[in-house]
Amino acid sequence: MKKIAILGSTGSIGQQALDVIRAHHHELKVVALTGYQNLRLLEKQIREFQPRMFYSSTKLDTGYGAKFLSPEEIASHPEIDFVIVATMSKAGLSPTIAALRAGKKVALASKEVLVMAGEVIIREARLNRAQILPIDSEHSAIWQCLRGEKTKPRKLFLTASGGPFYRCSQSQLAEVTPEQALQHPIWKMGKKITIDSATLMNKGLEVIEAHWLFSFPFNSIEILFHPQSIVHSLVEFMDGSLKAQLSCPDMRLPIQYALSFPERWSNLELPRLDWRTIQSLDFEPIDYDKFPCLKLAVAAGESGGTYPAVLCAADEVAVEFFLSRKISFTDIAKLVQKVLEQHQNTSQPSLEEILAADSWAREYARRLFL
Amino acid sequence: MKKIAILGSTGSIGQQALDVIRAHHHELKVVALTGYQNLRLLEKQIREFQPRMFYSSTKLDTGYGAKFLSPEEIASHPEIDFVIVATMSKAGLSPTIAALRAGKKVALASKEVLVMAGEVIIREARLNRAQILPIDSEHSAIWQCLRGEKTKPRKLFLTASGGPFYRCSQSQLAEVTPEQALQHPIWKMGKKITIDSATLMNKGLEVIEAHWLFSFPFNSIEILFHPQSIVHSLVEFMDGSLKAQLSCPDMRLPIQYALSFPERWSNLELPRLDWRTIQSLDFEPIDYDKFPCLKLAVAAGESGGTYPAVLCAADEVAVEFFLSRKISFTDIAKLVQKVLEQHQNTSQPSLEEILAADSWAREYARRLFL
Repeated sequence: MKKIAILGSTGSIGQQALDVIRAHHHELKVVALTGYQNLRLLEKQIREFQPRMFYSSTKLDTGYGAKFLSPEEIASHPEIDFVIVATMSKAGLSPTIAALRAGKKVALASKEVLVMAGEVIIREARLNRAQILPIDSEHSAIWQCLRGEKTKPRKLFLTASGGPFYRCSQSQLAEVTPEQALQHPIWKMGKKITIDSATLMNKGLEVIEAHWLFSFPFNSIEILFHPQSIVHSLVEFMDGSLKAQLSCPDMRLPIQYALSFPERWSNLELPRLDWRTIQSLDFEPIDYDKFPCLKLAVAAGESGGTYPAVLCAADEVAVEFFLSRKISFTDIAKLVQKVLEQHQNTSQPSLEEILAADSWAREYARRLFL
Repeated sequence: MKKIAILGSTGSIGQQALDVIRAHHHELKVVALTGYQNLRLLEKQIREFQPRMFYSSTKLDTGYGAKFLSPEEIASHPEIDFVIVATMSKAGLSPTIAALRAGKKVALASKEVLVMAGEVIIREARLNRAQILPIDSEHSAIWQCLRGEKTKPRKLFLTASGGPFYRCSQSQLAEVTPEQALQHPIWKMGKKITIDSATLMNKGLEVIEAHWLFSFPFNSIEILFHPQSIVHSLVEFMDGSLKAQLSCPDMRLPIQYALSFPERWSNLELPRLDWRTIQSLDFEPIDYDKFPCLKLAVAAGESGGTYPAVLCAADEVAVEFFLSRKISFTDIAKLVQKVLEQHQNTSQPSLEEILAADSWAREYARRLFL
C-alpha cells in the first residue's frame, strides 16, 4: 500500500489523481490532502477519503479529528511515502524541498517547481537520494522511453499540440480573446496552463523541466508540432533509433504511471487508442519565430540563474492581465520580455534569491501597466 | 571484443552485418563466415576479414589456412560468442540448435528458423540459457519497446508497409508480373522475401516469429498498415500506454542494435530521421481478407505442430513457380492453401518430423503443378 499526499488536490491534476486512487484503492491510500481556493471540493474529498492529515487555506473541521498540518509538514511526514505536487504557481516549491529532504518519492505536476528552482531541487534530490517522477504527459513519455536504456540519448523531442492558434497569422493573434484562448482543442486544463499552451509558453517551461529532469542540454531538446496529441514525446538514441510513447490524451495515464512505477496497472477507465480512428499522425518542426513566449522561455532556461523564476512570475502577471482584458494576447510575450530585459541575474541562486527574483518580477510587471 | 560468426554472410543481411562490423571494428571481430551460392563474394569477404573458420558449399583455398568447418561446428565453436543466422530457407535450423546448445548468443535474421521450429528452438534456448536476439526490424522494434518493462504487455502491433500492391484490386493482383513484385517501395531485400512482402506472407511469418520470441498469444498480435515504414512496430501495455520504435528503414540498425545490446553505439553511416521531410505517419488496421497468404500464415501459426513448416515449404515452391512464370501472383496463396489442406499435422514435432513435413510439402507442391 503506497501512502500518498496530494498537494493541491482540488485542482485539475489533483482531482484526476484521486480518480486514479479510486480505481486502485487496494494499492494506493490517501493519507493527506491539501487545497487552497476550492474549500467546498476539499471538504467533499476529505469526507470521501478520510485522510489522516490535511491543509486548507481556511481551517476546516473534518469532524473526525484529521490533523491540520502545513504543506511542508505533510510533505515530510513519516507516514507518507509519496508526495504528488499539483499546486499552482510557486506554492509547491517549499513543500517539494521538504519532501526531498525527507527522502520521499515526489511526483511533480507543478511545472514551476523545476522551472524556478531546478538547480536547487535536483541538488536536494541527489543529496537525499529522493526520486522525482514526472507527471506531465511529455516528461512521462520521455521517462517511459528511457526506461531500461543504458546509454545517454542523443536528442529529446517534446511534442506540442500547438494550441488553438498554431495556424493563425500575427494579426489574427493580436485579436485573440480570452474566451477563444481558453478553448484548447485537446486538453482540458486549468486557465493559466491553457493560456500558456496557446502562447506556447507552456512548451518552453516543459523544455526547462526536461533539461533538469533528464540532465539534458538545451540544444538537444527539440519541439515537434503534432496536432493530434497522440505521441506525447520521443527520444532519439545514439544509434539513430527513436522511441515514442503514444496514448489517448488523458492525464490520468501519466499520473497512474508515476504511482504504479515500476509496474503498470490495468485501468478500464482509461481510454485506449483505436487505430481505426487515428489514420494519420502529423509532425513538423516548430516555428519558434511565431511564438515569442517559447523563444523567451528557452532563452531564460539557457541563461539559468534567476531568469526562469522571473519568466514564470512575469508570465503569471501577463496571463492575469490578458484574462482581465488589460492586454492583448500578443502583449503577453512583450510584457514578459520587458521584465526579463530589466532583470539583474543571480547565478546559482539560493531558494531565497529565487523567491526575491519572483517578487521583484511580479512587482515590476504590475508597475509596467499601472 | 565480441567474436562473431555470420552464417550466410553473402546474403543481404550478411553483407549489412559486415558493414556494421566494419564501422565497429574495435568492438566486433569476425571469427567465421559461411556462404552458399555466391562464392566470389565469399572469397572477397574472407580476404578482407580473415576469419579463422569458414564454410562454403564448394571448398575454397583461403591462402592462409583458415579452418573449413561445417555450419554446425562453427555455430558451437568455443572461440565464438555470437552467431548471426542469416541463411536462406531451412539452412539455419540445425546450426541455430547447435549454437543454442553451446549457450551462444544467437541473432536471428532467418525467419524460417522460428517459424518452422519455434517450439524446439525456444525449448533449446531455455534449457541452455542461450539468448535469441531478433534482427528483423519489426521484432527489434518490439524488443526495444519492451526494454526495462516489468509487466507483460497487452498487445503487440506489427507494422506492414503493405508492399507494392496494397491498394490493388483482386483482378489487378492476378495480373502482377515478377518484375513488378520485385519492386518493393521501401526495403531492398532478397527476391524471396520481396515476393513474400508483396503477398504479405512475410508479415504472417513475422506474426509467428513474434509469438515465439515474446511468448505472446496470436490473438494479441495485430498488424497495422503503415506505408512509410518509419514506425517499425508498437507495444501496448496494460495501462493503455504504447511505445513505438521509429527509424529510417535500414536493416543495419536492428543488426547493430543486436550486436551492441545492452549498449547503443553511434554510427555515422546510419541515416537519421529528418522531421522536416516526414510530415505524416499513416496507420490503418490491415485488411486480412485481401491478403490470403497472411491469413494462411496466422492460421498455420495458431494450429502449430508441423503446419508452419509446411506453410514455409509450400510458399518457397510457390514463389519459385511465380518467379519462373509457372503460376500467377494470386496462385501463390492458392497453392500454399492446397498443400496445407492435405497435410496431416504432427503436434509437438521433433526436428526430424519438422524436416519430414518440409520435404513432404515441397514434393506435394511440385506434384500439384507437374
